[in-house]
Amino acid sequence: MFSFQITAKNSRARTGIFTTPHGDLITPVFAPVGTQATVKTLTPEHLKDINASLVLSNTYHLYLRPGDELVRDMGGLHKFMQWHKPMLTDSGGFQVFSLAQTRKIDDDGVTFKSHIDGSTHRFTPEKSIAIQENLGADIIMAFDECSDPNDAAYSKIAMARTHRWAERSLKVKTRADQALFGILQGGVDPHLRAESANFIASLDTPGIAIGGLSVGETKEEMYSTLDVVTPLLPEGRPRYLMGVGTPEDLIQGVLRGIDIFDCVLPTRLARHHSAFAPEGRLNLMNASFSRDERPIDETCDCYACITFTRAYIRHLIVAKEFLAGTLISIHNLRALIRLMEQIRIYIAEGSFEARVPELLSQWANNAKRIKPEGHKG
Amino acid sequence: MFSFQITAKNSRARTGIFTTPHGDLITPVFAPVGTQATVKTLTPEHLKDINASLVLSNTYHLYLRPGDELVRDMGGLHKFMQWHKPMLTDSGGFQVFSLAQTRKIDDDGVTFKSHIDGSTHRFTPEKSIAIQENLGADIIMAFDECSDPNDAAYSKIAMARTHRWAERSLKVKTRADQALFGILQGGVDPHLRAESANFIASLDTPGIAIGGLSVGETKEEMYSTLDVVTPLLPEGRPRYLMGVGTPEDLIQGVLRGIDIFDCVLPTRLARHHSAFAPEGRLNLMNASFSRDERPIDETCDCYACITFTRAYIRHLIVAKEFLAGTLISIHNLRALIRLMEQIRIYIAEGSFEARVPELLSQWANNAKRIKPEGHKG
Repeated sequence: MFSFQITAKNSRARTGIFTTPHGDLITPVFAPVGTQATVKTLTPEHLKDINASLVLSNTYHLYLRPGDELVRDMGGLHKFMQWHKPMLTDSGGFQVFSLAQTRKIDDDGVTFKSHIDGSTHRFTPEKSIAIQENLGADIIMAFDECSDPNDAAYSKIAMARTHRWAERSLKVKTRADQALFGILQGGVDPHLRAESANFIASLDTPGIAIGGLSVGETKEEMYSTLDVVTPLLPEGRPRYLMGVGTPEDLIQGVLRGIDIFDCVLPTRLARHHSAFAPEGRLNLMNASFSRDERPIDETCDCYACITFTRAYIRHLIVAKEFLAGTLISIHNLRALIRLMEQIRIYIAEGSFEARVPELLSQWANNAKRIKPEGHKG
Repeated sequence: MFSFQITAKNSRARTGIFTTPHGDLITPVFAPVGTQATVKTLTPEHLKDINASLVLSNTYHLYLRPGDELVRDMGGLHKFMQWHKPMLTDSGGFQVFSLAQTRKIDDDGVTFKSHIDGSTHRFTPEKSIAIQENLGADIIMAFDECSDPNDAAYSKIAMARTHRWAERSLKVKTRADQALFGILQGGVDPHLRAESANFIASLDTPGIAIGGLSVGETKEEMYSTLDVVTPLLPEGRPRYLMGVGTPEDLIQGVLRGIDIFDCVLPTRLARHHSAFAPEGRLNLMNASFSRDERPIDETCDCYACITFTRAYIRHLIVAKEFLAGTLISIHNLRALIRLMEQIRIYIAEGSFEARVPELLSQWANNAKRIKPEGHKG
């Protein structure tokens, strides 16, 4: 049911096709984040219009609200949110560590309090998989523990636990129409990362995820970690770099052999009035845009850019109209999806590696990360 | 440039075509309210999808933010908000009386403080027309004074002032591509209303608006006021009942010869999670909808109803996702626009009057008005 075929390579960068029950993913691919079974402020029609192919949703959030059993009973996540293309759910691990109140980790699992109402819950690998089977995404994740990258001792403990949890996740998985990806951890220690890459690659999974990056380490640490990890991973399985990233991180990730990315950055920036533009990120609330008759990006083909001026979007922001967030979300997501489309063409024609400096320079003013807030979408 | 052709009549009810520079309006018509140059949470594409033909925007709001001169310099309201079908702006009078802080009315105009920042401004008939000429809607309104319908003495004074202001509005109007409608007032006093109808009808305007209703009087008072007024108005000009209304008010208004309506009700209800449905207004936040797999209205052809379940929309509301407001707005607006489409067909085939009891009974559970808040959209 799941197969991955690499159609072209440029050194470590690859383009390929990952087959899922809800259609083919052309990789490398950027997935918009639909935290609570919706990409914030957008309809599924908007997502189709920007050529989104994979949407991520969050196990932690959906378990708490509306509940994974409800989603199952409503026909699963695809039907519930009316997104009939490939979907991915994370394991809930990252949110438990970043969002939930007062958590207690033991070797069996994690007990935590909901950030919504303080109620107590427990996630184990078995529970995470059960929830994800109820949700029904095409790609699901092993339950993992994300460590502070700057705490080497903790990174080692968390990695070891993540490995045992990956085995347990794999063991209890029952649905043939879901691809379970193991997640490798190890902080920024190259030895731990290598050990984790080898261990997770040894499991029989259709894909491999790289967790614990873009969570506080530097960009250089992230790139050198990828340089350690991806050469150890089997060629024939897609690699998913979780929670990444900025345009620069996408380019650098693809260069290092990453196939799948997701990040809240484009939609979260949009809600803070910030738009990707050729001259860098624009805060469209600035008075300087009040009479700017240009679109956000004259080179962009999204609905917001072919239709509206910066002046109008600035007015919507100042007037506190939600449509501003919708329009900037459409543009920011389209910008990253278009970047990936461009990268795929470059890989296919063999020019990607040579064009990396040009791509990085195009996006240099849009490179800044945002503070991690736990995949809030 | 403006012409009104009645194509069918059913007693006092009429269906016709009002020609404007941005296309024909098939009447009777319901106009969604786009207070601040946007129908809240919707794109112009959504408005096209629900077959909206006329959109109202508010002079008071746009004058304050982003400023009518800015809108003019950006090419006018149609271009600014990318709505290329007919538009209507009100005169700002109603908002000055209902929204602005500390206002002082004299025979020349009104001095008021902005509800946004407390700054002092002055509207006169001349100023209102100048603003509306900058905005550039197809249909514009004479500056008027809306009285408390239950204060007969004040209603008389406000009516007299409204008449003088209508003459002044007409005198300063310069654009040939805008149809200025006079507004008749007079509270709920039939003598004042008759006097106002005769006076406003005596002015050379392509259409006539009826103001000061749905502002605190009873439904019976509104209908009997219409019974006094519309027989006095010339047949050949469209009649616009401002700020109305509920489905019941639309049916009763058409029955009494009204051609144009606008109201914030559908979009405001949507933001309060309330949807028009066959069984009555549904508060979709209710737990009873958490597993309801039906659409809001099984008979509705809108995007929300053909795509999503009540369970999903209820989840969006509980999870505080703005998409809920978008989807319910699409449905509520479509419901009223579809009602008008149905009414037009009935008038054309000569069955409208006979079908009024049936229509009223279909909508009986959706009849309740909301508290007036001044066209806030």
